[in-house]
Amino acid sequence: MKLLEEKILNTGKCIGDDILKVDMFLNHQLDVKLLDDIGEEINRIFAEDKPNKILTVEASGIAIAVAASRAMGYLPVVFAKKTKPSTMIDDSYCAEAISFTKGTSSILRVSKDFLNKDDRVLIIDDFLAKGEAGMALCDLVKQAGGTVVGFTAAIEKEHQGGAERMRNIGIKVQSLAVIAEMRDGKITFK
Amino acid sequence: MKLLEEKILNTGKCIGDDILKVDMFLNHQLDVKLLDDIGEEINRIFAEDKPNKILTVEASGIAIAVAASRAMGYLPVVFAKKTKPSTMIDDSYCAEAISFTKGTSSILRVSKDFLNKDDRVLIIDDFLAKGEAGMALCDLVKQAGGTVVGFTAAIEKEHQGGAERMRNIGIKVQSLAVIAEMRDGKITFK
Repeated sequence: MKLLEEKILNTGKCIGDDILKVDMFLNHQLDVKLLDDIGEEINRIFAEDKPNKILTVEASGIAIAVAASRAMGYLPVVFAKKTKPSTMIDDSYCAEAISFTKGTSSILRVSKDFLNKDDRVLIIDDFLAKGEAGMALCDLVKQAGGTVVGFTAAIEKEHQGGAERMRNIGIKVQSLAVIAEMRDGKITFK
Repeated sequence: MKLLEEKILNTGKCIGDDILKVDMFLNHQLDVKLLDDIGEEINRIFAEDKPNKILTVEASGIAIAVAASRAMGYLPVVFAKKTKPSTMIDDSYCAEAISFTKGTSSILRVSKDFLNKDDRVLIIDDFLAKGEAGMALCDLVKQAGGTVVGFTAAIEKEHQGGAERMRNIGIKVQSLAVIAEMRDGKITFK
C-alpha cells in the first residue's frame, strides 16, 4: 500500500535493525484518514474470504480493526485483552504471546461470549514481526472451534519470519506494507 | 443519547452498585456502527469548542476517539500509554491515575512530541467514574501548556463524582449517557 509505505518512510524511525517506531500515525498519535484508507484496503483484500468478525488485540490493533469494520459493513470487532479486568468474570479463551517490542510475555484473553464455532474470523494487528500475537490470536479462534479466514498487519517485517510461521499453519497472510529489510536506519520494502 | 442508553439497558450488566460491564459493545466487543453514531454526537456537542486534537487513553478510549476524529474532520488522535514500551525513548509528560475497575494505579504517558502549548484538546474516554483518568489527562495537557476545551465519556456514572471534580477545575464536561444511580441491578439515567 503505497500511501502507507510513504508515511513509514517519511515519519517512521528505525531503532536498531529490528524495531520500527511509527508513533506519528499508528502507535501513539493516530492518523485517522490513513486508518480509513487502510480499512478500505483490508476490505479489498479480504472481502472474498467472507469474514463475519474481526479479532485484534489491545491497544494499537483497535484503531485499525475499527476502520476495517467500517469498510466491511460494520463487522463486529473483538479485541483480546492483555490484563484481566475485574469485570471479566466469565470463562475466557487464553493464549500466551511474547511482545517483540516490550520483551514481556502476555496472556491474551477473549471471553467465551465473543468467539464461537460458527465464526469466520479476520485477524488484524498493527505489526507482524515474529508472529507471536498472530499465532496466539489464531489459537484463541481455534479453541472456540471457529475458522481464521485471514490475517493482516498494517506493517510486516518479513525478515522476522512471522508471516511464514502463520502460513505454515494454513493461514492466508497479506500485510499492507511489507518490509524486506531494515539496515542502518534504511527501510527496504518488498 | 437515546441509542446508547438503550444499548446499555439491553446489554449492560451491573456488578454491584458501582461497576457496569458493557463488554458487548464498548469494552471487549465493539459495535462500530454505534461508535460512529457516538462520534457524530460528540461532534454535535464539541464542534463549537474548536478542538484541534483528541486525547484519550488506551485501550477502550481509542475506538471512541477514532470515531469522533472522523466526525470532526479527521482531527489527530493521541492516546496516552499505561506502560512504557521500548520504543518510547523520548521525553514524556506523566500523570498518575487509579483505575476504578481494575483497582490498580497507572502512570499515563504522552510523548512531548504530541502535545504542545498551541493545542486545543478534547479529551475522550469510555467511562467517567471518579474522574481519575480524566484528571490525569487534563494534567498532561496542562504540563504541555495546552488548553482542554472539553471532556466527554461515553458513559458517566454521575454518583461517583468525576464530572463534578472536573467541572471544579473549569472543564466543560458533557457525557453521552449519564447514569444517576445503579441499584440492585437497575440502572437509572439522569
